[in-house]
Amino acid sequence: MPLSVATRDKLKGVSTATICTALYKRGLRNQMIQNVVPLDPGKPTMVGVAFTLRYIPSREDLNPITVFQDRSHPQRKAVEECPPGAVFVVDSRKDARAASAGAILVARLMKRGCAGIVTDGGLRDAAEIAKLDIPSFHQRPSAPTNLTLHQAIDINVPIGCGDAPVFPGDVIVGDADGCVVIPADLADEIADEAVEMTAFEDFVAEKVLEGRSILGLYPATEEGTRSDFAAWRKSKGR
Amino acid sequence: MPLSVATRDKLKGVSTATICTALYKRGLRNQMIQNVVPLDPGKPTMVGVAFTLRYIPSREDLNPITVFQDRSHPQRKAVEECPPGAVFVVDSRKDARAASAGAILVARLMKRGCAGIVTDGGLRDAAEIAKLDIPSFHQRPSAPTNLTLHQAIDINVPIGCGDAPVFPGDVIVGDADGCVVIPADLADEIADEAVEMTAFEDFVAEKVLEGRSILGLYPATEEGTRSDFAAWRKSKGR
Amino acid sequence: MPLSVATRDKLKGVSTATICTALYKRGLRNQMIQNVVPLDPGKPTMVGVAFTLRYIPSREDLNPITVFQDRSHPQRKAVEECPPGAVFVVDSRKDARAASAGAILVARLMKRGCAGIVTDGGLRDAAEIAKLDIPSFHQRPSAPTNLTLHQAIDINVPIGCGDAPVFPGDVIVGDADGCVVIPADLADEIADEAVEMTAFEDFVAEKVLEGRSILGLYPATEEGTRSDFAAWRKSKGR
Amino acid sequence: MPLSVATRDKLKGVSTATICTALYKRGLRNQMIQNVVPLDPGKPTMVGVAFTLRYIPSREDLNPITVFQDRSHPQRKAVEECPPGAVFVVDSRKDARAASAGAILVARLMKRGCAGIVTDGGLRDAAEIAKLDIPSFHQRPSAPTNLTLHQAIDINVPIGCGDAPVFPGDVIVGDADGCVVIPADLADEIADEAVEMTAFEDFVAEKVLEGRSILGLYPATEEGTRSDFAAWRKSKGR
Amino acid sequence: MPLSVATRDKLKGVSTATICTALYKRGLRNQMIQNVVPLDPGKPTMVGVAFTLRYIPSREDLNPITVFQDRSHPQRKAVEECPPGAVFVVDSRKDARAASAGAILVARLMKRGCAGIVTDGGLRDAAEIAKLDIPSFHQRPSAPTNLTLHQAIDINVPIGCGDAPVFPGDVIVGDADGCVVIPADLADEIADEAVEMTAFEDFVAEKVLEGRSILGLYPATEEGTRSDFAAWRKSKGR
Amino acid sequence: MPLSVATRDKLKGVSTATICTALYKRGLRNQMIQNVVPLDPGKPTMVGVAFTLRYIPSREDLNPITVFQDRSHPQRKAVEECPPGAVFVVDSRKDARAASAGAILVARLMKRGCAGIVTDGGLRDAAEIAKLDIPSFHQRPSAPTNLTLHQAIDINVPIGCGDAPVFPGDVIVGDADGCVVIPADLADEIADEAVEMTAFEDFVAEKVLEGRSILGLYPATEEGTRSDFAAWRKSKGR
Repeated sequence: MPLSVATRDKLKGVSTATICTALYKRGLRNQMIQNVVPLDPGKPTMVGVAFTLRYIPSREDLNPITVFQDRSHPQRKAVEECPPGAVFVVDSRKDARAASAGAILVARLMKRGCAGIVTDGGLRDAAEIAKLDIPSFHQRPSAPTNLTLHQAIDINVPIGCGDAPVFPGDVIVGDADGCVVIPADLADEIADEAVEMTAFEDFVAEKVLEGRSILGLYPATEEGTRSDFAAWRKSKGR
Repeated sequence: MPLSVATRDKLKGVSTATICTALYKRGLRNQMIQNVVPLDPGKPTMVGVAFTLRYIPSREDLNPITVFQDRSHPQRKAVEECPPGAVFVVDSRKDARAASAGAILVARLMKRGCAGIVTDGGLRDAAEIAKLDIPSFHQRPSAPTNLTLHQAIDINVPIGCGDAPVFPGDVIVGDADGCVVIPADLADEIADEAVEMTAFEDFVAEKVLEGRSILGLYPATEEGTRSDFAAWRKSKGR
Repeated sequence: MPLSVATRDKLKGVSTATICTALYKRGLRNQMIQNVVPLDPGKPTMVGVAFTLRYIPSREDLNPITVFQDRSHPQRKAVEECPPGAVFVVDSRKDARAASAGAILVARLMKRGCAGIVTDGGLRDAAEIAKLDIPSFHQRPSAPTNLTLHQAIDINVPIGCGDAPVFPGDVIVGDADGCVVIPADLADEIADEAVEMTAFEDFVAEKVLEGRSILGLYPATEEGTRSDFAAWRKSKGR
Repeated sequence: MPLSVATRDKLKGVSTATICTALYKRGLRNQMIQNVVPLDPGKPTMVGVAFTLRYIPSREDLNPITVFQDRSHPQRKAVEECPPGAVFVVDSRKDARAASAGAILVARLMKRGCAGIVTDGGLRDAAEIAKLDIPSFHQRPSAPTNLTLHQAIDINVPIGCGDAPVFPGDVIVGDADGCVVIPADLADEIADEAVEMTAFEDFVAEKVLEGRSILGLYPATEEGTRSDFAAWRKSKGR
Repeated sequence: MPLSVATRDKLKGVSTATICTALYKRGLRNQMIQNVVPLDPGKPTMVGVAFTLRYIPSREDLNPITVFQDRSHPQRKAVEECPPGAVFVVDSRKDARAASAGAILVARLMKRGCAGIVTDGGLRDAAEIAKLDIPSFHQRPSAPTNLTLHQAIDINVPIGCGDAPVFPGDVIVGDADGCVVIPADLADEIADEAVEMTAFEDFVAEKVLEGRSILGLYPATEEGTRSDFAAWRKSKGR
Repeated sequence: MPLSVATRDKLKGVSTATICTALYKRGLRNQMIQNVVPLDPGKPTMVGVAFTLRYIPSREDLNPITVFQDRSHPQRKAVEECPPGAVFVVDSRKDARAASAGAILVARLMKRGCAGIVTDGGLRDAAEIAKLDIPSFHQRPSAPTNLTLHQAIDINVPIGCGDAPVFPGDVIVGDADGCVVIPADLADEIADEAVEMTAFEDFVAEKVLEGRSILGLYPATEEGTRSDFAAWRKSKGR
């Protein structure tokens, strides 16, 4: 189920908070990747389908530094296979004591046209990654090479990331609040609903800044609110 | 016990670190709200009396999204009742996996003249809240709606926030180091003492930057320090 | 084993990530001080030999505020004894609920020519410390005086800091990713190797930004990579 | 909504695991009081309606040992007011570093005919409490007096206990797996359903011990399983 | 690489502590499954090759209670496929808030001749499982059905369990100290070495109980120790 | 300040809970070694002066298995130097992922007449240690050799153990609730006070089991309670 350009564009204009509420209405309460932050909070919203990498704990004898000389090493292979437009999602078992990846790999993802990277562990070269033109999310910076604690084992299988389930093809959206996972088959309807909700929230925010009480306004339990909102939409062309 | 303008102004000019030391001298060791940070570290110091909201863990059947249609829902009611000048303090049981509040509610607190907000959980729309003209503190950003994990249950009762006891009317002070809780009946004397301590610390900082050793200077165990400080105060008019 | 100027200068030009990999090649996997961040990520890389302070949990009767009137109090004494060029490393048992030190002590370290400070606990007056011209690292800001939870007990003994072993004289390097501990007797060779690795990584980064795949490039398993790198070094004079 | 004798008796014969599944079918996923264990795993199943005590973090000046001389101190008052048949449920904010109660208070609850006690903190005199004829559950033993970290503040209000919501009147069931909270209005139907489920699980357990595969048996997707179960029930009179 | 009867028998006679030391000598430091305990510490030592089940976080829409009606549901399928003699090892992401399995599934593993079960999460019906004639290990009891937080996703792939890497075919040994993972290709030599070490440790234990100092005895740095041990072995026929 | 036989005997007859309360009255709130349990809860109360061992995180190159061939290795040396009657207290930085010691060393402590052992980490061979005739306390069992994560560095210096400060010579008391640290200079008076408190608590427990309310009884705010207690003491000869 590919992500349409229309849905992608809609999702780029809404917040993870709004998406979470839309998911909540459908009974989905655990789609937020917990405890990750953007390396550069100023980047545009990240949107893309999930392409996953799974790590298990590293075993010393299997992870000398020379493993990377194997061109089929899963970490390096995954970086070269992650499709343009996709988000590289890494299951690091929430362990940020060693890195999930560093600036060179993230730069390669960027050059290949990937939409971003998120790990529930840490990224090394964090200051450099923050400057790259690709959104990136992690728990905290972490300098030690991934081999120290992580062994890349599987590419593009269902994983957990930050206590959220991530299936390949799910849609990942990331902003200053973190990253949320939209099940693939819900992406279109969540995008539509989130666009509507965003219009209303923008209206509410404007009214609140004008001094209006939230009672009756948010949610729109008063008839006056609903008519004001209709007028506002018309005037704004939204 | 209302917070006088004089005490408020004094507290705005001192640091949470200094206040903690003044409390420590009185045997109060647990008044720091642990593990919260300002969303915008550049904001002026937050000072105000505590107005509290207590959450308990959310039960799914009691928390459909429609609960907010009830104008007396405690979260919304609390936001409308928090007095101007007060700090909205939220007991989220240190659980930041779902939001304590979002930008619209914080904007409403700002418009109502509240002094700030602190939760030991997370705030959603964190980037927007950071830009509002009201100090805000949380553990980390969190996009999911509060209903996901939190049910608002009580307004303005004694709570725990970040492992600190908070009684309605206590004075909350927040700066880049976090937030501290001053028991209501100590606010005046702590403010006075902290102003005095701040004068001395400013003097010490100046001397240290001039190259003086801290021995004998900080604390002022040498007579010379005490006379230098007296002269410094006179020259500074403090 | 003093740190030579040459080695210090080399280490200032490499990253903690690169150093971690060089240590990893030697079987050293736990040299990263876990979970510390720079107060000002924009500072130059911190390099210096470790001078340590060890805290134990504070006992109330031994830690009235008056203990600082004793000129030989270990925290204050340590600050005055930390040699110019050294990094002040504090074992706070990873407990950031009370401060390890504040702006005045850090300013004194700066004036005394120390290279930096790192604690696995917290620093108070964090905003002020960030502005000082000395690199500083901690877990998170923490306003309460150290006496609240920490009693300074030993100066310049082997300690744990953020789960890493730190022996006096080890070389500490800190950047945006955190701080790493280089065993004293490895400092020269690690510095040399890291300089070499950095040249190669800079070459790789440049090629990746030009659009090259990482396969065969990183690591340099293709002969073409090795010859390109040789040419690049010559052209860059590195 | 009082707990009927019939429902109580049914619940005494089923497990918390079975109850959790019945709650799960109704969309209730967070009713288990997390991370508590029985002090004596050999006790019969605990069943009773919740009577709650809420603690907040202790403030030193409000909690000298003399506070207990006040007969209306909430901890002591609650112990005397907890109705016969009720379970005393304590919100200790999951903090077991100080006790929630000790053997004398638990003995008093026992003598007053209470059904049990559960805290998400710790109990002191744990060995003695284990020997009392009343089921008790906690996180781990904890010797320090509650005043050290806990201040009793509210009696019989909604609380969180071990990340579960607990409303006064909810039905608490505890066995070797821990304690579960059944919303008051679901107690009868959950009890009925759990009794039915238990009959089936006992049948399945018997068949598994006879060597049958779980496929088709558990759940009963094969017609043969359903007829066997019907015959088994008849033969057992269940 | 099948586990020979000889190696299995040797491993049944040694402790996880001794095995850890033998692994340590080979540079393997992370083979202990951290933070799991036997449900019945009195069971004989568990030995068997690993057969794995991988869980990811549960997504609500994919995990209604009806999923178990599918005979190919991975949890149930895995229980029926785990070979006799194998240990069922479950990656529950160290999350014990919901169960990994319950008494019926563990009974089925027992009847199928499996060697044991270990999860880094929790088991439900813990008291019943403890009584079954099969060793079982978990973090702590947990009543909620696995569907609450865990979705079974993969059978017999490499996993992490309690921060240890587990590859299908590795040998798992479990006793009162917990469970250790022996890489498949090291099982024979580790078993041999551990048997030797155990003989020496038994000798040392006997001598210590006779009052001998550990210096020179443990390790056997004194010639006298070595000759005494030789004599002891001869007398014991070991 | 040696521990007198009289004080030792008194402390053997009181509980850690009672001692904690006596310390609390003196403003000492952090003397409980947090999160340790007895390996055998049935042992008599442990009493002895503290003899300490300090671990730091292990560095791989300094900790080959051969280090124990050095007779002056601090772990082994400490075991041989711990005085008869003393409690061996280990600072393992609350890290139980590797052992602090095993059965052979604990047996040696027992033979040397030591009073017990407590570590805030783990003990290996836990089942064997539980059977030895010496009280032992730890966080949880842990099979990996101490070298894996711990390097013994200092003998008999002030340490932290389970977040409590421990000075050599302090008196350690351990029972089913865990271990408490009595400052050396308070041991006599705490013992006296605890004996008195225990008499009263025993009286109260008896009265509660007879059905008396705790109000007015515990504490003894009613005159009747005080006279009843006086009579009870006389009758019991306490």
